Amino acid sequence: MDFRSDNVAGASPQIMAALLAANDGPASSYGADAVTSRLERRFAELFAHEVAVFPVATGTAANALALATLTPPWGIVYCHEDAHIAVDECGAPEFFAGGAKLVTLAGDGGKIAPAAIAARLTERGFVHHAQPAAISVSQTTEAGTVYRPDEIAALGAFARQEGLALHVDGARFANAVAAFGCAPADITWRAGVDALSFGATKNGALAAEAVIFFDPAKARDFGYRRKRGGHLLSKMRFLSAQLEAYLEDGLWLENAGRANRMAARLGAGLARLGGAHLRQPVEANEVFVELPERVIGALAEDGFQFYRWGSAEATCLRLVASFATRDGEVDAFLAAAASRLAQVNG
Amino acid sequence: MDFRSDNVAGASPQIMAALLAANDGPASSYGADAVTSRLERRFAELFAHEVAVFPVATGTAANALALATLTPPWGIVYCHEDAHIAVDECGAPEFFAGGAKLVTLAGDGGKIAPAAIAARLTERGFVHHAQPAAISVSQTTEAGTVYRPDEIAALGAFARQEGLALHVDGARFANAVAAFGCAPADITWRAGVDALSFGATKNGALAAEAVIFFDPAKARDFGYRRKRGGHLLSKMRFLSAQLEAYLEDGLWLENAGRANRMAARLGAGLARLGGAHLRQPVEANEVFVELPERVIGALAEDGFQFYRWGSAEATCLRLVASFATRDGEVDAFLAAAASRLAQVNG
Amino acid sequence: MDFRSDNVAGASPQIMAALLAANDGPASSYGADAVTSRLERRFAELFAHEVAVFPVATGTAANALALATLTPPWGIVYCHEDAHIAVDECGAPEFFAGGAKLVTLAGDGGKIAPAAIAARLTERGFVHHAQPAAISVSQTTEAGTVYRPDEIAALGAFARQEGLALHVDGARFANAVAAFGCAPADITWRAGVDALSFGATKNGALAAEAVIFFDPAKARDFGYRRKRGGHLLSKMRFLSAQLEAYLEDGLWLENAGRANRMAARLGAGLARLGGAHLRQPVEANEVFVELPERVIGALAEDGFQFYRWGSAEATCLRLVASFATRDGEVDAFLAAAASRLAQVNG
Amino acid sequence: MDFRSDNVAGASPQIMAALLAANDGPASSYGADAVTSRLERRFAELFAHEVAVFPVATGTAANALALATLTPPWGIVYCHEDAHIAVDECGAPEFFAGGAKLVTLAGDGGKIAPAAIAARLTERGFVHHAQPAAISVSQTTEAGTVYRPDEIAALGAFARQEGLALHVDGARFANAVAAFGCAPADITWRAGVDALSFGATKNGALAAEAVIFFDPAKARDFGYRRKRGGHLLSKMRFLSAQLEAYLEDGLWLENAGRANRMAARLGAGLARLGGAHLRQPVEANEVFVELPERVIGALAEDGFQFYRWGSAEATCLRLVASFATRDGEVDAFLAAAASRLAQVNG
Repeated sequence: MDFRSDNVAGASPQIMAALLAANDGPASSYGADAVTSRLERRFAELFAHEVAVFPVATGTAANALALATLTPPWGIVYCHEDAHIAVDECGAPEFFAGGAKLVTLAGDGGKIAPAAIAARLTERGFVHHAQPAAISVSQTTEAGTVYRPDEIAALGAFARQEGLALHVDGARFANAVAAFGCAPADITWRAGVDALSFGATKNGALAAEAVIFFDPAKARDFGYRRKRGGHLLSKMRFLSAQLEAYLEDGLWLENAGRANRMAARLGAGLARLGGAHLRQPVEANEVFVELPERVIGALAEDGFQFYRWGSAEATCLRLVASFATRDGEVDAFLAAAASRLAQVNG
Repeated sequence: MDFRSDNVAGASPQIMAALLAANDGPASSYGADAVTSRLERRFAELFAHEVAVFPVATGTAANALALATLTPPWGIVYCHEDAHIAVDECGAPEFFAGGAKLVTLAGDGGKIAPAAIAARLTERGFVHHAQPAAISVSQTTEAGTVYRPDEIAALGAFARQEGLALHVDGARFANAVAAFGCAPADITWRAGVDALSFGATKNGALAAEAVIFFDPAKARDFGYRRKRGGHLLSKMRFLSAQLEAYLEDGLWLENAGRANRMAARLGAGLARLGGAHLRQPVEANEVFVELPERVIGALAEDGFQFYRWGSAEATCLRLVASFATRDGEVDAFLAAAASRLAQVNG
Repeated sequence: MDFRSDNVAGASPQIMAALLAANDGPASSYGADAVTSRLERRFAELFAHEVAVFPVATGTAANALALATLTPPWGIVYCHEDAHIAVDECGAPEFFAGGAKLVTLAGDGGKIAPAAIAARLTERGFVHHAQPAAISVSQTTEAGTVYRPDEIAALGAFARQEGLALHVDGARFANAVAAFGCAPADITWRAGVDALSFGATKNGALAAEAVIFFDPAKARDFGYRRKRGGHLLSKMRFLSAQLEAYLEDGLWLENAGRANRMAARLGAGLARLGGAHLRQPVEANEVFVELPERVIGALAEDGFQFYRWGSAEATCLRLVASFATRDGEVDAFLAAAASRLAQVNG
Repeated sequence: MDFRSDNVAGASPQIMAALLAANDGPASSYGADAVTSRLERRFAELFAHEVAVFPVATGTAANALALATLTPPWGIVYCHEDAHIAVDECGAPEFFAGGAKLVTLAGDGGKIAPAAIAARLTERGFVHHAQPAAISVSQTTEAGTVYRPDEIAALGAFARQEGLALHVDGARFANAVAAFGCAPADITWRAGVDALSFGATKNGALAAEAVIFFDPAKARDFGYRRKRGGHLLSKMRFLSAQLEAYLEDGLWLENAGRANRMAARLGAGLARLGGAHLRQPVEANEVFVELPERVIGALAEDGFQFYRWGSAEATCLRLVASFATRDGEVDAFLAAAASRLAQVNG
């Protein structure tokens, strides 16, 4: 009955089991353990490409460390105005990148397009201006939508042309892959992505993300940044074990697929209700729905938990499904919404 | 047979069990969960003092965030020349504190004393000099020794007199408390300590430390620093649960006591061997012993793991016991050392 | 014939004379000299208020150091989207403020208003969001307009209400005061301004600005920031002497008044020409005029220097008058513009 | 009668004249002026090598910007424990380099040698340790001594071997060149120096230093750093004009030569006095002399100004001669010292 975020869910049993399994005798610390040493190859297989992989415990760390690697302190990172890196990380990217600048852009459905970036490119080599350095997009976006492979590829081509790096904040990367049924490569390196914050926490891990670089040479200094950021875990095996289990037997896509299906069910149900208005199509595991103020209050009284989207007074709700969301919870919400709407409309 | 560090050990079963227990349905994220909300009181009881408590996943994060709170960017943090913050954190304190300066001091047994700090105090208000801001000591020290309550109190009194903050890097704080059997308060706030990095990872947790401030008013901005450092976990309950279990029923002291006893047994055994020389008394869970080069090589061939101390060519070994170290491992090492020394001496 | 900027002008003879006069025998360094010691009182008189005064050599230094004093690293500085601090300082404010964030706002005539800021205030105490800390406005604005005393006062009242500091980038502060004939206090502390970058370079100095705090207590740490920013001059007398001469006998207002009159003359002349369109009323020493592309090219061929405004292809020119601009230069430009427009229109 | 520092002197008349001459009509700003454009060639001739030249107004800016260019944020800069960058810049290098670390070394006569650095080299590629990045030496040193060409060359060879950059803080570079009569190249690029803070302020300029890179490719990003540090002057011609005049007709060496001769005269005179003890040979423009406490007090009463060296209670004086020091001042000091010593000894 808790649709506030996918981070209110706990962890997948498989991942818990992996933690227990990893707790078997001594292991070399700081990533020199057996589990961690397997991870790089595992990710390389997943992406069908050489990669450098750096596990960290939070998405903010993954994003900020990745961006600090891709931009100099005088660089500009272009992102959507609602991007997590711009709005919800308390300036972590600016901190890690030594005072770099985020230039935020408007864009429908939480997406940015090359034209919007092009309009804000500053003059290269002009020392008065911070310099274009990187583009960062969220996949899935903060609006619950998914960049299609061709949309990412358009950004990737633009980035190449303009000498920018392309970063993907993939806190919900699994939901995007599950949505398309595409290969992970299709919306990353094949589309020109340089670095990916590969999220697991929101989709079944306790606290595990991996920063993936598709050109390991660019990640040469990442280890120093991670260490001095306090993000190198001594008992790394417990972080790596989460990621390994997450990838094992397709758990990551199974979890994301379930979350997506629950959101689709929720969205479809709401769409059928008079008085409820889906702000945009449900593409992954989030539903944005406008409801009458009285209905929102009544649903809260009914014990459902959710966030209003945009502000504390907004009448748009964000409903997030996770791997742990059950059909019954969705149906209970739909029934309550139908009932409360009927009261209001009636 | 692995004496390299206490961070090669896994996690205590009780802490694993707590993780599993915490994984029960949805919970509010970012620390608004039930487990986390209990932690502050739990620590207040432990220290018999009002506290502000901030769980983080690594000791480097704990230290760097604590120090950044205690010093302005133009401040000086005084510490021992072997201090973890100076040597083993890749500049994390300087990074988090916006370019503050560590002034490192010599001192026997890994300890610094007021006189050594006094000799390096810079002129207050003289804008050319970085300004004295804080003292940081490791408890237990990097030399395996323990600051006695009166030693901490002397530093605390000096700190008050000079307007400095006093920080304790307590990565092995439990080992110090276990060594003295003192109250945690005796070597913290009663002795003038302002902030403590309370370690759990090395002593049975997977990845959990707590930054403790004894004057919560000084911690007012810590939350922002933690967030923008990427150190605020979304599924915080899994971090807090480790700390809660760590404190439950005295597990932290039980674990530390065992580690200390194992080190004592190891030290006592080595002291009896001709050709082995303990560099200093064993006070907590680390043994520093000088052995002939050929013996060191032979012990490595025997399958024992350890680090040379000081450099890759040093003939002083650091042997670290943990909560997971067993009597048999210690005895095996002692037997092997006796045998190898006999060969060499023979 | 050079209307590119007021920084292409040289220095006022009176300021040059003051430099020569200051070069008389030894003087204490780093601001302990006689000239510097007089400055604080001189500025206090000028503003009819207690002040703390810190001379620096550049406007970027003045702005970045002032803002770093007013915002924590996790703070937000609200400013116009065309503000010098946002566009033309290569991220200096972010650098000096440890990674703080500029939130840029649209606004007519280069001005921002409380409502625009109010719409972007983030939730206080919510650690995920950078926190509202300061407002910075340019006086005169980048659009050549001048904030009226009541406009500043409205921002000041809003700042007080919301707990924000108010900073004025006064690179052209003299032009604003000259435009109104108001007391300097009227558009600073009486209107709620906390800190002012008081510019002199653009208006007759060689390289001299003063950061003015109207509550000296807030400037307590400024000296350290200035020193570690490399902005404390050893032979400070030569910087202070420029500022002293700038204030002496009203030179600053005399210079600014001349610049304003020259711009007014230019603006009035252009307004009378068919085919020239003033983008906004001329309020200080800058004229923004739209001209046909062919006329722009022709004027450049005629030897006039100016910048296009907005981009290299824009057909809006920014024409800047300085204390050194002569009537003849203005008239020559007007004559050439008339002639070239006639050709085009003809 | 003021021997406190060479920065208490004013400016050379020739440099003042150059300022006046530069104040002739409009000039392009930010370094696009004619004077600045001549500087790079002028320095290239001086050093007989291709150079990139960046004028700034202070020595702290020159040092901090140069070092930030040579070291990553996780780098170590090795320097003498008395180095200006370590002691007298309020942490500017750490600030500009994003939290890099200065490792300070003991060394006779204010000098460091390869062996002392070698003893502190950290393990390359070991992410826990800040990484060796640069060596910085002061020429002349803070002890008034001068690194001989072979001493610099030894450091340069060591730097090459270890992959370190070599920086020279040349606040008194002219005094060193004048002391040897060597070519500037002999103690810079020929000896392996990568970057030089070429000082002029202490030796006759008002406020002018130049950062010189002997491999312009390494300075590619310097312009951004300078701008965002607030160190790019708009009316750059006034800074460049000082440097041009400083180099013109050998003024820099003439000034330095005079300062050195005055110090030599002072040192020789003091050496002849019973009760005065030169702490080290006078090699450039500074004299370090130990005198009885009562004599020091008496000389202060006689109106002489100087700093005690080391602390406010030290009985070692630092006496600094500058281009403006006159024979009569030296002789007056010697006469007073002789007289006061006679009283004390008598």
